[in-house]
Amino acid sequence: MMERIAILGTGLLGTSVGLALRAAGFEGSITGWNRSRRQAETALALGAIDAIGDDAIATAKAGQAVLLAVPIFATLDLMEQLAPVLGPAHLVTDVGSTKSQITDSADRLFNAPDRAGFLPGHPMAGKERGGAELGDANLFRGAVWLFTDFPAWHRSSESAALGRSWRQWVVAMGARTLDLEPKRHDELVAWVSHLPQFTATALSALFEDQVGEAPELKDVGGRALREMTRLGASPFAMWRDIAHTNTDAIAAALQALEQRLAHIRENLRTPELREEFDRANRFRKES
Amino acid sequence: MMERIAILGTGLLGTSVGLALRAAGFEGSITGWNRSRRQAETALALGAIDAIGDDAIATAKAGQAVLLAVPIFATLDLMEQLAPVLGPAHLVTDVGSTKSQITDSADRLFNAPDRAGFLPGHPMAGKERGGAELGDANLFRGAVWLFTDFPAWHRSSESAALGRSWRQWVVAMGARTLDLEPKRHDELVAWVSHLPQFTATALSALFEDQVGEAPELKDVGGRALREMTRLGASPFAMWRDIAHTNTDAIAAALQALEQRLAHIRENLRTPELREEFDRANRFRKES
Repeated sequence: MMERIAILGTGLLGTSVGLALRAAGFEGSITGWNRSRRQAETALALGAIDAIGDDAIATAKAGQAVLLAVPIFATLDLMEQLAPVLGPAHLVTDVGSTKSQITDSADRLFNAPDRAGFLPGHPMAGKERGGAELGDANLFRGAVWLFTDFPAWHRSSESAALGRSWRQWVVAMGARTLDLEPKRHDELVAWVSHLPQFTATALSALFEDQVGEAPELKDVGGRALREMTRLGASPFAMWRDIAHTNTDAIAAALQALEQRLAHIRENLRTPELREEFDRANRFRKES
Repeated sequence: MMERIAILGTGLLGTSVGLALRAAGFEGSITGWNRSRRQAETALALGAIDAIGDDAIATAKAGQAVLLAVPIFATLDLMEQLAPVLGPAHLVTDVGSTKSQITDSADRLFNAPDRAGFLPGHPMAGKERGGAELGDANLFRGAVWLFTDFPAWHRSSESAALGRSWRQWVVAMGARTLDLEPKRHDELVAWVSHLPQFTATALSALFEDQVGEAPELKDVGGRALREMTRLGASPFAMWRDIAHTNTDAIAAALQALEQRLAHIRENLRTPELREEFDRANRFRKES
């Protein structure tokens, strides 16, 4: 019953969703729009979308399910523009990395009887570099796709039926779904996603100051160094929005790591160091 | 001219050296010894060594080149035992991750006209888990193999000729060699090797406290989390010796990272965050 999907934002994630939908057997139309048309043309050439929409609003109106696959502040802007022009026969969903603010806007702008439903989503998948040209039909395979808050009163609407259909396609793309409250979501991803990113950024920036002038020394670190700094290539444009919309949770996680590092530093020659390695070993053993 | 190699310690590194030597065409004898005989038997079964020596001293005496591939304190112990019984027709080399203390011992115990030469070495390769069964003929391919301090007066001896031959075999195993002063070595690896390890340990220990009880939440983090905590599995036994023999340099690197994380934490909503991402991007661009 879901026959028309609109993807607003055909960067890495939007393009990968289009490719993954096709790989999973979706046979309806997929129309894409992107602020810079070149990325939409790449997505079209890759077969992730089968048409390019002229503007975001018209593209969304022509679809049933509308996927917002742009950075968080752009998502919030599009939500403001789309809410008045879409109706209960539409579903809007997104891929934003923080959910409290988006869910607040969804409750304010969508999810009313005369409005489209909004299903906040967040696939835990990505690459350290963006762009349609890196689109990958297997990006979501084995990944967790988080959802937050689809109001109960809305569950019998046409929009909600599209939401259930969207969840099925997410599973068909190879992801596992998990539902969390928005606040719990943002706290959890502050630990398991945002902290690793900001740690890699801090390490990379530090190494740039320490050995940036001596490229031959970079190779010395080998795999460990490459791996711990891979995310250092991540674009500021995306992470600025995350830092702005999950500041407190990220700050708490960063401070906890600072304290943990200080604890290790103060115990490099005491038996407490063994305790830390044991805890770390335990984390890796169970995973 | 190097026809007999003794490998003391047939864990991951010792076994990998044996396999890599064979893969590179070394046709002489390789005798292995290990404190726990089971690891030596695994190395023998894999073809990394062609005989098991009964004790460390006799095994070393029967070789020309003697590779110490055990943790740092065990290396220092073996150096004390070997120095009086080996002579100028022997070369001793090692794979220890810190070099100041080993080089000091080498200058005190070896590198005299009636003694064996000692060439301190450090291949920048490894895995987060040890053991002969993980031995890998390609472990050193593309890696840097660091050397420190082979005293000038020793360069015309038989031992030094063996040292030059050892360096050639290191290159044949696929590694690039780089010479550093011991102090510079220890400072550099504190940044590019030890800091990544202790950061991964701190992150893993922190995650164990935060989400260790909820294994379903571990999967949420995906590749970024797995990668940033892979080294969390590293064994304490090896890292204790590193922490003890490079304490000051590691502490300085840890403190610098703590400060960097605090700087990011305090600037999550300021333009300075962009500066940090730009520096991090720059580090990854050049590498």
